[in-house]
Amino acid sequence: MRQEIGRSADGEAAPVTEPPKSVLARGLLLLDAFGAADTELTLAELARRTGLPKPTAHRLLAELVRWGGLERTSGGYRLGMRLFILGQRVPRPRGLREAALPYLEDLYEATHENVHLAVLDGVDTLFLEKVSGRRSMPIVSRVGGRLPAYCTATGKVFLALGPPENLRQVLSAGLPRHTPHTITMPGLLRRELERTLERGYGINQEESETGVSAVAAPIFDHRRRVLAAISITGHACRLDLGRLAPAVRTAALAVSRELSQATANGTLVLSDRP
Amino acid sequence: MRQEIGRSADGEAAPVTEPPKSVLARGLLLLDAFGAADTELTLAELARRTGLPKPTAHRLLAELVRWGGLERTSGGYRLGMRLFILGQRVPRPRGLREAALPYLEDLYEATHENVHLAVLDGVDTLFLEKVSGRRSMPIVSRVGGRLPAYCTATGKVFLALGPPENLRQVLSAGLPRHTPHTITMPGLLRRELERTLERGYGINQEESETGVSAVAAPIFDHRRRVLAAISITGHACRLDLGRLAPAVRTAALAVSRELSQATANGTLVLSDRP
Repeated sequence: MRQEIGRSADGEAAPVTEPPKSVLARGLLLLDAFGAADTELTLAELARRTGLPKPTAHRLLAELVRWGGLERTSGGYRLGMRLFILGQRVPRPRGLREAALPYLEDLYEATHENVHLAVLDGVDTLFLEKVSGRRSMPIVSRVGGRLPAYCTATGKVFLALGPPENLRQVLSAGLPRHTPHTITMPGLLRRELERTLERGYGINQEESETGVSAVAAPIFDHRRRVLAAISITGHACRLDLGRLAPAVRTAALAVSRELSQATANGTLVLSDRP
Repeated sequence: MRQEIGRSADGEAAPVTEPPKSVLARGLLLLDAFGAADTELTLAELARRTGLPKPTAHRLLAELVRWGGLERTSGGYRLGMRLFILGQRVPRPRGLREAALPYLEDLYEATHENVHLAVLDGVDTLFLEKVSGRRSMPIVSRVGGRLPAYCTATGKVFLALGPPENLRQVLSAGLPRHTPHTITMPGLLRRELERTLERGYGINQEESETGVSAVAAPIFDHRRRVLAAISITGHACRLDLGRLAPAVRTAALAVSRELSQATANGTLVLSDRP
């Protein structure tokens, strides 16, 4: 577990009481201080969020700017291009995204709804890719963004089809309500997951955000382990989940087939387990 | 300038003689050791590439794994999910990609060729986004990947329409030949850039890779500074550059319009100059 900056599930930063001793860990903590909603942070705010003395923070920030992971702005600092470039090299999302992207494109072209590729990250579903156009419903999801697994279509796919440990983690984290439709009772969630397992696809009916529904299907590796999921997300009042489910499943199966050869012969290692 | 690891323009790593003193800089050097083509690196290779003693490298690698920027593998280490997540938060590429993506999608749908979004990074064009499907020509470009500016359509847009300093940097870096069509004479490059300026779009006719051609158009901010470029890339024998140029220009103008309001009122800061 990495040093937490007192971060909630959506990545928002909060002050810590005791910064790490290691200079490297302190530098990395400064990077972590940039939450999902932050564009620019001042020296003062960075010092506050990390608990580092200002002169220390200033010195380390200068090193991070020299490296390219941060950039100076008129008001302070922002994350820099070097991080973006390195981030694109991370093999697990890169392999999945490259294999899936043509199929995500095709699914978008066939439906003109928002199409997502997601993986499980802890108790959240994490978006690796998003394909949408001006004809899809505008939604706030971001590549690299996350939502709780228990109230999303992709998340339910992971919980229903993955190892039981995932569900255990989610249940111990709790099931807070997001909308009138959110499933907050463990027993009801288990039943929903059984249905997901039977159907082979997951559904979210306004459970994470009012007015938004989604349907998702699993991407498997050659050993039938769930690697990722594809989903379609759109207006709850308009989205015909039953009609779209076969399309999502077809796309997910195609990606699975594409990946299975590469994962079977070891050229592509996509599981988060070594 | 950040500490270089003895890196060529395509990001490939080479051994250095003298590692930095700072512990933070040493940790960041270990991240930089992962070149564009590396999936997994052993401790020995990481020590070699960074010039760090093995025990030192091992200790710092453990911190990076705890942070999540690296992951352990059976054979060594690979870049980790934390870097991918942070990379998605880098504001400049994020703002550009989010604004441009629907138009890139539309351009792909209209042409079924590879569509790229790129920015200038030093003397290279750097790909921020790529939209392609199974009907487009398979090409090796990667999001986060780079090619030299002088022999690419997007690069020529940057050199022709941006500040003269960019061209000066490119000319002093030299113009090595990539294909029989690569422009390697400064005078010829200047003439080509004049044509690019007149036309309002850039062209690459098998100059970076045999068999591959491209056409690109600029994305401007509210002050007519070139922020990025959109390109279409495909088979040289099949791509009708003249016919596609208006489509690319239209898409680029649409993105410019979308961005100009946000950049004018300061809600979006996309220039690399403060």
